[in-house]
Amino acid sequence: MAIASNAPVIILVHPQLGENIGAVARAMANFGFKELRLVAPRDGWPNEKARHMASGAENIIDAAKLFPDFNAAMSDIHIAYATTARPRDMEKRTVTPDEAMRELQRDKNIAFVFGPERTGLENDHIVMCDALITIPTAPEKTSLNLAQSMVVVGYEWWKQGSEVRGQGSEKKNIPEPRPPNPAPPAPKAHWNALFDQIDTYLEETDYYRVDHKKEVMWQNMRNMFLRGNWSEQEIRTFRGMLRILYEGRKPRKNASAS
Amino acid sequence: MAIASNAPVIILVHPQLGENIGAVARAMANFGFKELRLVAPRDGWPNEKARHMASGAENIIDAAKLFPDFNAAMSDIHIAYATTARPRDMEKRTVTPDEAMRELQRDKNIAFVFGPERTGLENDHIVMCDALITIPTAPEKTSLNLAQSMVVVGYEWWKQGSEVRGQGSEKKNIPEPRPPNPAPPAPKAHWNALFDQIDTYLEETDYYRVDHKKEVMWQNMRNMFLRGNWSEQEIRTFRGMLRILYEGRKPRKNASAS
Repeated sequence: MAIASNAPVIILVHPQLGENIGAVARAMANFGFKELRLVAPRDGWPNEKARHMASGAENIIDAAKLFPDFNAAMSDIHIAYATTARPRDMEKRTVTPDEAMRELQRDKNIAFVFGPERTGLENDHIVMCDALITIPTAPEKTSLNLAQSMVVVGYEWWKQGSEVRGQGSEKKNIPEPRPPNPAPPAPKAHWNALFDQIDTYLEETDYYRVDHKKEVMWQNMRNMFLRGNWSEQEIRTFRGMLRILYEGRKPRKNASAS
Repeated sequence: MAIASNAPVIILVHPQLGENIGAVARAMANFGFKELRLVAPRDGWPNEKARHMASGAENIIDAAKLFPDFNAAMSDIHIAYATTARPRDMEKRTVTPDEAMRELQRDKNIAFVFGPERTGLENDHIVMCDALITIPTAPEKTSLNLAQSMVVVGYEWWKQGSEVRGQGSEKKNIPEPRPPNPAPPAPKAHWNALFDQIDTYLEETDYYRVDHKKEVMWQNMRNMFLRGNWSEQEIRTFRGMLRILYEGRKPRKNASAS
């Protein structure tokens, strides 16, 4: 069986509630997954509740493949990850979601396998998987529901994918030193004009009162404005605002007399 | 108000369904979050459905703090992240969940802010936040529900926390993504007081003239000031300066224009 896309296959083993199947399909769509396989869902298939809950991801529900047993669903899979806590009596390699995504080989058929809502995967399922994905959680509350687990796994897959695609993997590790301002920052001449204006106003209003403090205060104030990395337009806006506050708005030429 | 733990505060603005509040509380518990703040939940508070859905996280529901409006919920927050898509008409720094977690300063009061289920955050909320968190998704289906967004944000927070716990030295090399300000940034209550003051002055001087432009202009202006990441002292200085410009320290010669 050929796998439709390069996204991993999602296998739900004995899922119980149709609503949960639908919610998984939605989370799959959120993160670019295409193929859903269902192993003997408890309430049969198709399932209207699943389709309803999937809103926006009905195509995934409609194309879902039904399998009578786990091994049939796994037959063309090269590498499978079981999403579950490790059973006490079995040794399996355990990875976090991001570790799993980093080791994926794109030319293989990959599956992420999820167990039934209440009981999780059985040892017979887990043993067939190559590794376990464990989502790190607070030790006091470890249970995530089915769709939430899919969200985390899907999110990590999509994230790694975008890093591979080159959407800013480089940028990612180098935070911007200044807050980005889409408009280019104003040249210093605009800042100086702003500062001249403020300086004039402050002198006229006797703002400083105490002369010997002026130098430090003025320095701090300019730093504080400069830190905002304003564009020319922003400086213009601010200058206009200050002028109106200081002088008062001039009467409108043609104020509507109504 | 003191924040109970070093985990960021979760603020839900006008949440609609109790079930979703409960699901958020559960996801909070999964990833070690403690403090939930609710801004005017649609169906009132307390809410039995929220408590029921929270199973295992009832303590978070019982301790949730109720606020009449957004600014009250934000008053002691130093740095807030809005979880939302960027509005078309506003420029804000946008980060992915993992970028956000890497830049968190553990000694500040941090909030992650979520909007109502159907409509998301309004621009007036977004403008008060320091950055947007956008969860990368497939472009064909971008909507995650409230609890799922909380799962992703919570997962990244918990993950980064365990990385820091594991390999603390690495974190030190990550440069500060915000503009350097030796003084700690002011909590939002100070910004709100500044904005109220400016808003009053601008109304009194008929600054906008054209009513329909006011919203966007006011948004841009607040963003432009917030970008400077001012301390309490700096906001105080600026407010004093504005007051003196507006009222005049010395009697003004012939004030008014109207």
